[in-house]
Amino acid sequence: MFQHETYIRVRYSETDQMGFVYYGHYATYFEVARVEALRSIGCPYKALEEAGILMPVTEFSIQYLKPGKYDDLLKVITTIEEFPMSRIRFHYKTFNEANEQINKATTELVFLSASNMRPGRVPEFIRSALQPYF
Amino acid sequence: MFQHETYIRVRYSETDQMGFVYYGHYATYFEVARVEALRSIGCPYKALEEAGILMPVTEFSIQYLKPGKYDDLLKVITTIEEFPMSRIRFHYKTFNEANEQINKATTELVFLSASNMRPGRVPEFIRSALQPYF
Amino acid sequence: MFQHETYIRVRYSETDQMGFVYYGHYATYFEVARVEALRSIGCPYKALEEAGILMPVTEFSIQYLKPGKYDDLLKVITTIEEFPMSRIRFHYKTFNEANEQINKATTELVFLSASNMRPGRVPEFIRSALQPYF
Amino acid sequence: MFQHETYIRVRYSETDQMGFVYYGHYATYFEVARVEALRSIGCPYKALEEAGILMPVTEFSIQYLKPGKYDDLLKVITTIEEFPMSRIRFHYKTFNEANEQINKATTELVFLSASNMRPGRVPEFIRSALQPYF
Repeated sequence: MFQHETYIRVRYSETDQMGFVYYGHYATYFEVARVEALRSIGCPYKALEEAGILMPVTEFSIQYLKPGKYDDLLKVITTIEEFPMSRIRFHYKTFNEANEQINKATTELVFLSASNMRPGRVPEFIRSALQPYF
Repeated sequence: MFQHETYIRVRYSETDQMGFVYYGHYATYFEVARVEALRSIGCPYKALEEAGILMPVTEFSIQYLKPGKYDDLLKVITTIEEFPMSRIRFHYKTFNEANEQINKATTELVFLSASNMRPGRVPEFIRSALQPYF
Repeated sequence: MFQHETYIRVRYSETDQMGFVYYGHYATYFEVARVEALRSIGCPYKALEEAGILMPVTEFSIQYLKPGKYDDLLKVITTIEEFPMSRIRFHYKTFNEANEQINKATTELVFLSASNMRPGRVPEFIRSALQPYF
Repeated sequence: MFQHETYIRVRYSETDQMGFVYYGHYATYFEVARVEALRSIGCPYKALEEAGILMPVTEFSIQYLKPGKYDDLLKVITTIEEFPMSRIRFHYKTFNEANEQINKATTELVFLSASNMRPGRVPEFIRSALQPYF
């Protein structure tokens, strides 16, 4: 199992008039969280795209437990529970500054070749980077 | 069962460098779709908030089938399958201009009193407006 | 002089916890306004990109007179005052439903070749489309 | 004169299909930059709102010199050149990782009482915090 923690400060632009983080912005927070998780094991997503591989999201689901608030320094714990083959699944738990869990979520991503938009296996260098954790 | 169709034009700001609609923006499209669905039966969400009721999202899940593209006039079909009691669940299907389904999604929302942030039953005027469809 | 009117409904995602449209979202509204202005004279921006021309913004300035509010159907009046040569300047005025002007703004855009990212003259088909108005 | 540096990582959600940071997102980056600048002198914006003061932007202008790119760790230098009386003006310069300036911008903000939405003078604790720099 691989796990990584990322901290994200809630921006004013991300609040809505309910005074909460707009429900759609967590998708962006989880993008940041999984990119930082991959960076931490030497796999920057930018390098992946430069190597001609795109990682679109194929599934996203989230349960909102509590609202996020402006200026909160949120902690997102990102987990990869299963060694990825053709797809990669990330699990996320978000905590506020009082360490209360405010949501749990999961995303599934595939690996597309940018040249033909066809899905492929998880690239070798991601598999090697993840191997030690499984 | 209640069903409503909404059309949403993809904005440039909603694309990402993959050339697709960023996966997080569908949350906004579904907000627009359910607000227009409620407006069509005489329940503008703005009036709901002015009456002291907030409708935060408690669950959101989406499966991405195909990418959305810039300038596409997307059709979102919003469905309420079950008559709501304390929660309301919307189902969405999004189609591109070639009438290909590009995703399916669902959101669950609750009704909070703005004064005490406590959840309550679906307001009477929403129940009355939906009654004819069930 | 060329002038065009576009209507844009404020989304919940575009409000902030002040209860106003977040100041950065007007950039998106003006994108929509100028794209619809160009579409109205037969120049869809999408076709421009497909022809290998990009139109990045080089200057943007805005004065905020009143806040935009949730669910307002804003009217944006887009004006091209000068016949464009190498750059094109759009002026915008936004009005709320009470017909109060809530801001005024301007953007300057250039025309880049997607192949070499070099700026060029305004494409001939945009010049022809605009000619009757000047 | 008061000056502060903030670093902001470009998110995928902030790119557009041109492969650049969408022009409207810099408004958010500058929000982050001025909030961090104020935090650095002991004036968190959140505390300001909790004290019943809102700081809406009344003017924003930006010149784009070069595009921002995905994953760049942008440096924003925020400057207050004049001691604020009833309004506060922030100047911003953004640099990419190659230390090339990619834009320059300015925002003007006012101080509103949340209770009556009337503008007032710059709050005493912000004036005190800024005094040493002028």
